[in-house]
This record gives sequence, structure tokens and C-alpha cells, in this order.
Amino acid sequence: MTLETGVASRQPDSAGEEMYRLAERLFPIGRSLTGEGVRETLAILCERIPGLETVEVPSGTRAFDWIVPDEWNVREAYLIAPDGERVLDYAEHNLHLVGYSVPLDAQLSLDELQPHLMSRSDLPDAIPYVTSYYSPFWGFCLPHKQRIALAPGTYRAVVDTTLEPGSLTYGELVVSGRSQREVLVSTYICHPSMANNELSGIVVAARLAAWALAAPRRFTYRFVFVPETIGAIVYISRHLEHLRNTTIAGFQVTCVGDERATSFLPSRRGDTLADRCARHVLGHHAPDARYYSFLDRGSDERQWCSPGVDLPVVSIMRSKYGTYPEYHTSLDDMSFISANGLGGSAELYIRCLELLEANRTYVATTPCEPQLSKRGLYPTVNFHGAQKRDRTLTNFLAHCDGERDLIGIADHIGVDAAALPPLADALLQHNLIVPTDPE
Amino acid sequence: MTLETGVASRQPDSAGEEMYRLAERLFPIGRSLTGEGVRETLAILCERIPGLETVEVPSGTRAFDWIVPDEWNVREAYLIAPDGERVLDYAEHNLHLVGYSVPLDAQLSLDELQPHLMSRSDLPDAIPYVTSYYSPFWGFCLPHKQRIALAPGTYRAVVDTTLEPGSLTYGELVVSGRSQREVLVSTYICHPSMANNELSGIVVAARLAAWALAAPRRFTYRFVFVPETIGAIVYISRHLEHLRNTTIAGFQVTCVGDERATSFLPSRRGDTLADRCARHVLGHHAPDARYYSFLDRGSDERQWCSPGVDLPVVSIMRSKYGTYPEYHTSLDDMSFISANGLGGSAELYIRCLELLEANRTYVATTPCEPQLSKRGLYPTVNFHGAQKRDRTLTNFLAHCDGERDLIGIADHIGVDAAALPPLADALLQHNLIVPTDPE
Amino acid sequence: MTLETGVASRQPDSAGEEMYRLAERLFPIGRSLTGEGVRETLAILCERIPGLETVEVPSGTRAFDWIVPDEWNVREAYLIAPDGERVLDYAEHNLHLVGYSVPLDAQLSLDELQPHLMSRSDLPDAIPYVTSYYSPFWGFCLPHKQRIALAPGTYRAVVDTTLEPGSLTYGELVVSGRSQREVLVSTYICHPSMANNELSGIVVAARLAAWALAAPRRFTYRFVFVPETIGAIVYISRHLEHLRNTTIAGFQVTCVGDERATSFLPSRRGDTLADRCARHVLGHHAPDARYYSFLDRGSDERQWCSPGVDLPVVSIMRSKYGTYPEYHTSLDDMSFISANGLGGSAELYIRCLELLEANRTYVATTPCEPQLSKRGLYPTVNFHGAQKRDRTLTNFLAHCDGERDLIGIADHIGVDAAALPPLADALLQHNLIVPTDPE
Repeated sequence: MTLETGVASRQPDSAGEEMYRLAERLFPIGRSLTGEGVRETLAILCERIPGLETVEVPSGTRAFDWIVPDEWNVREAYLIAPDGERVLDYAEHNLHLVGYSVPLDAQLSLDELQPHLMSRSDLPDAIPYVTSYYSPFWGFCLPHKQRIALAPGTYRAVVDTTLEPGSLTYGELVVSGRSQREVLVSTYICHPSMANNELSGIVVAARLAAWALAAPRRFTYRFVFVPETIGAIVYISRHLEHLRNTTIAGFQVTCVGDERATSFLPSRRGDTLADRCARHVLGHHAPDARYYSFLDRGSDERQWCSPGVDLPVVSIMRSKYGTYPEYHTSLDDMSFISANGLGGSAELYIRCLELLEANRTYVATTPCEPQLSKRGLYPTVNFHGAQKRDRTLTNFLAHCDGERDLIGIADHIGVDAAALPPLADALLQHNLIVPTDPE
Repeated sequence: MTLETGVASRQPDSAGEEMYRLAERLFPIGRSLTGEGVRETLAILCERIPGLETVEVPSGTRAFDWIVPDEWNVREAYLIAPDGERVLDYAEHNLHLVGYSVPLDAQLSLDELQPHLMSRSDLPDAIPYVTSYYSPFWGFCLPHKQRIALAPGTYRAVVDTTLEPGSLTYGELVVSGRSQREVLVSTYICHPSMANNELSGIVVAARLAAWALAAPRRFTYRFVFVPETIGAIVYISRHLEHLRNTTIAGFQVTCVGDERATSFLPSRRGDTLADRCARHVLGHHAPDARYYSFLDRGSDERQWCSPGVDLPVVSIMRSKYGTYPEYHTSLDDMSFISANGLGGSAELYIRCLELLEANRTYVATTPCEPQLSKRGLYPTVNFHGAQKRDRTLTNFLAHCDGERDLIGIADHIGVDAAALPPLADALLQHNLIVPTDPE
Repeated sequence: MTLETGVASRQPDSAGEEMYRLAERLFPIGRSLTGEGVRETLAILCERIPGLETVEVPSGTRAFDWIVPDEWNVREAYLIAPDGERVLDYAEHNLHLVGYSVPLDAQLSLDELQPHLMSRSDLPDAIPYVTSYYSPFWGFCLPHKQRIALAPGTYRAVVDTTLEPGSLTYGELVVSGRSQREVLVSTYICHPSMANNELSGIVVAARLAAWALAAPRRFTYRFVFVPETIGAIVYISRHLEHLRNTTIAGFQVTCVGDERATSFLPSRRGDTLADRCARHVLGHHAPDARYYSFLDRGSDERQWCSPGVDLPVVSIMRSKYGTYPEYHTSLDDMSFISANGLGGSAELYIRCLELLEANRTYVATTPCEPQLSKRGLYPTVNFHGAQKRDRTLTNFLAHCDGERDLIGIADHIGVDAAALPPLADALLQHNLIVPTDPE
């Protein structure tokens, strides 16, 4: 018998390409906290993910300290210059309109218009991404270069939106495993045409759903596609006790599309199973990863990890939100992300999920070392000079004490935990170890 | 509403000047373990500190392993040289006489005199400070330069002291707060004419008493002005159970007058509330502070922190006893300390006391983040490029988990804890947090 | 009274020489897992160690996952070259024969012989040490230089061994102390003519037995001389519950003969009393010691520290097995070890045993500091400039809190723990401390 302790390096596969194509399809859709863009996005995901269900939560529904806002939809929105030219048009780029802009059809001087124009002098070619969900407002976003070239005179601003009772829409998929204990995968579906933040999280989460569905799994997997903040809060308000009782680890999937960096954001507690698992995988497969603090949080871990919810949720990211110049502008487009970026992110997450599946706590069945040689697990001739033996098997076995789990042993003996499951299987077959934790 | 999260730098005020003037008045008094000098000192403090009470403990009283010694008073003491000149005189400097010298009127040759002369060849201009409290002895202290110039011949040594049953005198002030839990402030009153060690502790402790009396406080404050060692032991012997049951933090105030350094001596356990509070204040307001070990102890923390007493008592000092050349000599005079030195020390201590008062443990009242924007605690338009937001409020709230106290959160989120009370007040007003610890 | 707090440096004594002479006597004996060589070795040890008993365990006896193998004895073994010369002979060096070689008398071509020849091209002058205990095999070991000079032709290989039911032999000595709690000292007796690994462990363990027998001791000492692995496993299988219930510390004595290095191998848990004791002794008396990880284990700590046995066993070594070029070859001969090497190792172990004996937990009998000066334990005249006082006594007393043991206090206050027992004795005489742990 030969024990394979090396970890095969995964070949670049087609998954990255497939994710990139899905992102291309979803990119143009005008998403927001609520509205048809969200539904259209989820409908496309439902084509791909068997069992994904769409849930509608009526406007006005209370969720802890929050109230689900009115549904927002855009028919059209544009700005006509004094010379009659349509200088800004939502149809050309959905970032041109401030999210949740209230309806309007008005004539304004340029001076009157200015407080409703959003641009960034530090990025003169970029359309910034701006929203005003909870305070009535309207506005247009445009490149600063364009803004300063606007001629004086009377403009016509048309914002043909509806902001009316409707519903907030989210997607949910629960893939049952042998255990009722759950792994949470969350991403958000409220960002309009931006690629890294945030189409990348959607397509990588979809890829993880495909992984969960591809074979029987130990744990139950819960996938959540929600509008950021209000969506996570609504979701938690409906599932808090269940989530608290069952979630052993969770991942907030966001900003996973580019190739500039790999980043890690820990849970609030910092030492949960999710943290230990992700740090182990990154340590062995993303040695240059940058480790942030929970103080750098900014996505829905703000809700999952809040004191009253307190779930073990972490994020593995590429270029983290808020850290790259293109963030929250039209420059975060499809050229910013890549199949390799998406594929590498998905691979790191799948390594995490596979490691969680394999993460058992074992205890050796016999005091002292067992006689491995009679089982073909150790050489019979003892000749020191002959070769350096791989000690992973004996080191693993020497720490099967019912206290450390597989990740803890891998960290302690300094090997990639992915090397241990085949060794554990061999030892299990020979009845040399037994698990002490629940399946 | 504007939340003030910056910490106003305190303006130099008149407190330092006032402390320095009090020190000038107290400086000439001939203090010792017992006697009229202690009473005179306490009488002056009683003028300043309403409620300060003087306690007399008779000689012979047992206190654990110790017995209160006889009371010592000095009428006069001098040394007459062979030529008839009075070369040393207690009336000129009270350090000239070894503390607790027994009475004597004798003729001695210079050789016979030598074992009773104390000087320091390493500080030839300094009169050293020497005591012999528990073994009958007499002696004169003088500059080494003067000693080596003494002519041979017959000297007359006059030590007109009394060493008779009387009492040990100490001062005590208890300022009741809303809570019966106590903060201890201790200093010592047994040192004769030396400024940093130890008039500075007396005048800074008096300043802290004024602070405690100036407004209703959460905690009860116990101020103790005792002769070092025996005084603290006597005090503890009378209050041990009470001190152990009520003391949440304590400060041994000593060597707080000069401007050369800021120093910290931890409690024996090293991680008590007093340690955490003082380290936090020093970290933000005395970044160059030197941190000593409890092995460097030397004042009454030797008693407060002894295993059988085990109180959480620390010292914030300027130049620590034993570390500066002038220590325990006549060079530790009024020119060694300053109004700024005293004032800065008092400010650090008051920061500690204020932080203890504010140090609550809170828990957020709602799962997930509350909607801060509707309460004016967060901007309504979400525009990343617009400004860097101060995240102190959200970071604080994200850690109100009923586990970390305010100091712990401040340490964790990397802000001066003094910035948090106004934020906590705002959150309390909006019912977004509640305290979980007793008032 | 003068308290001696310095630790006298031990003079080189005759113990090292005596150990070296014993090693010389034992060196030529042909030891293996079983057989007459082991019995002969133990018989010589029994001459030296009163009370050492020899135990015979029949072949076929089960011990956890193992079975005691047949007994192996060698009458003669040699290889005759085509020219009739006896080129290899067990009688010349017992490493020439692979341990546990099965009987044989055969004619073979050089090509047929090659799979049964063991040599090391990296050490062309060394005879390697090879065994095949649990798989039938025969072979000769020889210097590589000699091997490549072997002429083609027909060889006669004679292996006149017996491999038959008999017994495994080990030695055991239990020296009862005042307490039933035990200290384990283990070494192994299965290595043929090699000096550091492993005659050194045998002679140093014998020296420690002499120490244990030399005076009444606090703890009970258990000495075990077993064949490596199977011997330790057999021993544990017969004493597991007793060992688990009584062993407070243990030492696997191996590779303790040379002078190149001092090495430490921790227990699996790494923080047991044995670890703390040995690390303290090494820190003060072998400042250049190299600290290995339990992952570097290789001797019977593999059994003592296995999860189902879990004893607090560590090793202090000189050049650790597997780290020096001469390891497991004929170059590990009597010139590799020395009286100084053995003597220094024994001294370190005896320091450990003495420290364990002295390692009590004390609590001060009085709150606050006691008055040391009235007991002659502190100067009566308090004159800072006069001298720097040794603070070991007061530092020790300040930490007699019933929590830290003597080793813990020594580590904390930064002194050699060997300085503390005389101080503890003085404080005990004055009733200033009492022990809180069982004798």
C-alpha cells in the first residue's frame, strides 16, 4: 500500500472561465436593494443552481431595528443639457443614477443641479457608485472630467423611477448533508454594474453551490444571496435561532474576482473554526495573503458577527473592498476581474469546505504506537542511512488524542491538512483510530 | 448631533502650581514613622481636605507580624567639633540625624564617631537619608566632602530625642460613591525634607482627594496617608477583609514630582483592572513611559500586593525611587520637582480615575447593526470617495458584547478610551446598548 | 545568620570516570531486542545497582498491538570470499550482522549477495547498524569502501543464529520514597556495540539509580532498562494504570555521552512538570542547549507520551540521535563519548531530580511582609547608598501565594531555582511560610 501524502496541485480548470461568462451575462443588469434587477439576477442563478429559491419580503416588514424599504425600479433617467443634448443616461450606464433616487422631472440651473451631481476629482474618468437608500434624494453620478465641462444654463433632469410598496427579494438554497450542522455561504446581489464588488461574489458563491450539490456532503450547506445589510438583517431576523444553533462556520463571499491580491478578514472572535480553517488553507495555498483585522470589516460580516448574532463568519477575498482605487466606481468593470481570479478564489473556498468536511477529531485506539510495519504502513528493515522517511503518518497518529482536531494537528505538525484525510482513512481501515466527534 | 470622539488635550492649569506651593509649605517639617512632624503634616492636609481624619495607633499595638514602635521626637541634635564649632545641626537640615536615633550626649574621638557618621563618597555634596527604626542606633548624616575634612580630636554628639510610648499617626478619608466598591489611593508621610520621595505623593494624593470630593462619583474613594511599611501594615491589619471585599483598583502614589520620566510599576498579578486602566492611560498619554516589573517594587505595594492581601494596586511615577542619583539624599529637594511634574502626574491619575468611573460593560440591545442613519449617527448618502469616516462609534458598538469592558474595547479597537464615554452616552440615549455590570 | 543564595558550581568528580569505565566493560557485548547479550548486560548492572531486578517476558506475549518476538541469539556469522578469506565476521564486530538475521549457510554469487549487504556510500569507513526485527531477513553490514572492493565469484554466507521461543528481558528498580508519587527514569538496552546511542543512557541511568539509593527521597523513583519500543510497550502494558496514576515526571535517558552539544526533547504536551523542571535547569546550566520539538522524537518517549499513555516524559541529551554523522554506525564508538560528557549529563539530570524533590508550593503565613530584620534576615539600618541588596529572599517570599510552585517562582523572579531551597528552609524555620501541596 502506498500512502499519498503529497497534495496534488489543482490544475487550472474550466470553472474560472464558466464563472467569468456568468458574470458577463449578469453585469449589465441594474441591481439595487430591491426591484426587478434583483429578480432578474436571481432568475438567472436559479437556472444554474437547482433548488435555489427566491423569497419576497414585503416593504414595511420589520427586521430588528430596521424596516424593509419601498421597492425601487427605474424606467429611465437622464439629464438634458442647455443645448438639448442628453449628457447623462441611465440606459448607457446604470451607475449614472444615484441608487434609490426619487422621481423627478425638473428644469434646473447648473448651480441648482450641482448638489445632485456626484463625481470624484481624484478619479476624473470614473463614474462613482452612490446610493441613498433611507433618505429621499436624487442625483446623477458622472466622471469629474465631464462634470467640470458642463456648460451653464438650464438643464432638464428626468428621473423616472418608482419607489413604492413592493418587496425585497433574496435567494436561498439549503443543501442537506448527513449532519444538521451547517456551513453558511453568503454573498450580496444589490450592486449594479460593477465586477469585483460585486458580481464576483455571486458567481463564486454559485460555484460553491455547485460543489455542495455535486456529491453527498457531511454538513448541511446554506447559501444566501441577499441585498447587503438590509437583506442580511432581514434574513437573520427570520432565522436567528436556527443559525445560532447550527452554524459551525460561515463565509461571506465578496471581492473575489481580480488577481492583484489575496486577503483575509477574520470573524469578530477571530479564533473560530472558520478562522482556523481559512487561515490554514491560506497559509499553505496563498502564502502572500494579507490578513486584515475585523476592524477593517465592511460587508455582511457586520451582521453575521454582530454581538447578538455572533456567527463564525470570515471572508477570503482578492482585492478587498475599500482598498483598490477602482472600488465603487465604473472602473470596477469586467476587465478588472478574470477567470483566473475567480477560479483561484473558488479553489481556496473549496479547499476550505473540503477541509471542514474532513475535519474530525480522532483518538488512537491503542496505548503506545501500533505496529505499523505489519500493516505495510512502515518499513520492516530499520536502516537509518537508507532514506529520510516522511513522518506525517506517525506525527498525525501521535497527536490523535481526542483533543486536537485534524486542522489543529496539521497546524501543530506543520503540514497541509489536505495531506491528512488519506492517512486518517488508512488508519481508520486498520482500526487504529476512531473519531470522537459527531459525524 | 455631533459626536465628539476626539479627546481634548488638557490645558496646563493652576493645579500644578497649587500642589507645588503646598509642597513648599510641607517641605521643612521633620517627619518620621511617628511623632509631631507627622501630626503637623496631617493637620495642614486636614485644612485642605474636608473629611480627612487623623488616627492614632498606640505604640505596642500588634499588626500581623509587626509591633507599632515607640514614638520618636527630636528636640535638637548637633555635633560639636574639637574647635567648638557646631558642624552638624538637625535644625539646619533634618536629614543630618539618622531617623529614630536614640538619645545621647557624649564625648567621642573622631575614630569612635566614625561608625555613627553616614555619607556617600559617590555623592560628596549630598546628605544621605538613613533610618534605623527597629534597632537602637544613633548617627549623623553629612556630605562626604564635609566628613573627610573633619579634624581629629574630641567631638561632642548631642542627640536630644525621645523614643517613648506614644502613637503612630495616619490620615484617612473615605468619599462615598454610588457604589460600595472602592478605589484605593495611598501615599506615605514618613519622609523628612525630600521632595520627590516623598512630598510629591502627598500633594498629588491631596489633589486626587479634591477630585473625588468635587462631584458625586460612581465608586467610593479611600485615601490613605500612612507612614511607609508599618503604617500600611497597621492600616491593612485593621481593614483587611473590607479592603479585600471592596477594592476594585488601587494606586500607590509616590515619586510623582519631577519631569525626567514617567514610570509604571504593575501589581503583583500584573493584569488587574488597575493595571489595565493605568497601562491604557499611559499608552495614550505617556508614550515614553518606562514599564517596570513588580520585582522592582519598593513602596507600599509590597504590602497591598502581598499574597495574603493581594489588592490590585499599581504605581504611576515620574522618576522611580532608587533610579535617580538624588534619591534618598538632600539633593531630592524642591528644585528637583516642579509644578509641571506634579500637575502632569495628577492629570495621569485623574485620567485613570475618570476611566474607572466610565468603565462599564455594555451589550447591544438588538441583533445585527442598528440603523444609525435614522438617528443621525451615520451619513444617509453612501459615497465612498466622499470622506473617510471615523469608525470609532461603529467599532465600539460592534464590540458591545457583554464580555469586554470599555477599557478592553478601547484597547482592542485602538482608540483612547476617553473617546468612548460620549459615544456610549449617545448609544444609551437611543437604547442601543445597556450596561451589564453593576453600577 | 547568613543565607547562601549563590549556587555552588559543582566540581568535576569521579562519577564521569566511573561511568566511562562501566561503558567500556559493556561496550563489546552483543545486545539486541532479546537474547543473552541483554541478560549479560543486566547482570553487570545488577552488580552495581542493589535491588535491580530482571524480568523475563515469554515470546508470544501480547502487549497492546504487539507480540513479543522470538528470542534471537548468535553463535557465529561470517562471510567467506571466493578466495577463501573470511572477509566479514560477527566475532570481529557485532554490527557486521543485521540484527535478527535468520539462520543461513549458503553459497551465493556476488550479485545474489548484494541485496543482503548494507553499507553507506556517504560514510565509506563505517559499518552501519541495521535490524529487521519483524520481517525474516538476513544480511551483513560493512564499510562501503570494503563492499565495492569485493571480488566477483561465489561467496559462502554463514549465519548461525537461533530465532526461537524464549523471552524478552528487561530490568526494573523501584526505590520507594516518602511519597507514592513517582519519577520515571527509562533507558534502553537493545543496542549492540555503539557508545552514545546507546551505552551512554545505560550508564547515566545507573548513576541516577545510585543517586536515588544514596539517601531517603521524597518521591519514589522507578528505573526501567528495556529494549527500545517493544520493551517499553511491554512494560507499559503491565503497568499502565499505575504509571498514569503515580508518575509526576519522567526522563528518557539516551544519547548522553558526548560533549558536542546539549539537547532537549519535550514531552508531547510540552508544559508538564518534567518540561518545566528540565527547561529551568537547562536555562541556568546549559545556556547553549538546543531545544527540539516533540516532532523530532525518536526514542521511547514515542510510547511514554503516546495519547493513550500520556506520561510527562522528556529527554535531556547530548548529541541527539539522528543528528550526528556517526549515529547508528560503528563510528559511534567509545572515542565518541567521554567521562566529561557522561558526567555533565548525569549532573544535569541530578539537578532535575533535586529540583523536583525541592519543588514545593508555599504560602506566606502572614498578610503583608513579615518583619525580616528582627529575625536577622534583613539589615536593620536602612541606607540606600550603602549596598545593593540581594532581593532573592524578598522576591521569593512575595510570590509564596499558594499558586506558583518553587520552579514557577524561580522562573518568574529570574533566579536559579537551586538558590531557593535554603531560603525556603529559613522561612519555614521562622514559620513565615507553609507548604500547601502534599509531601
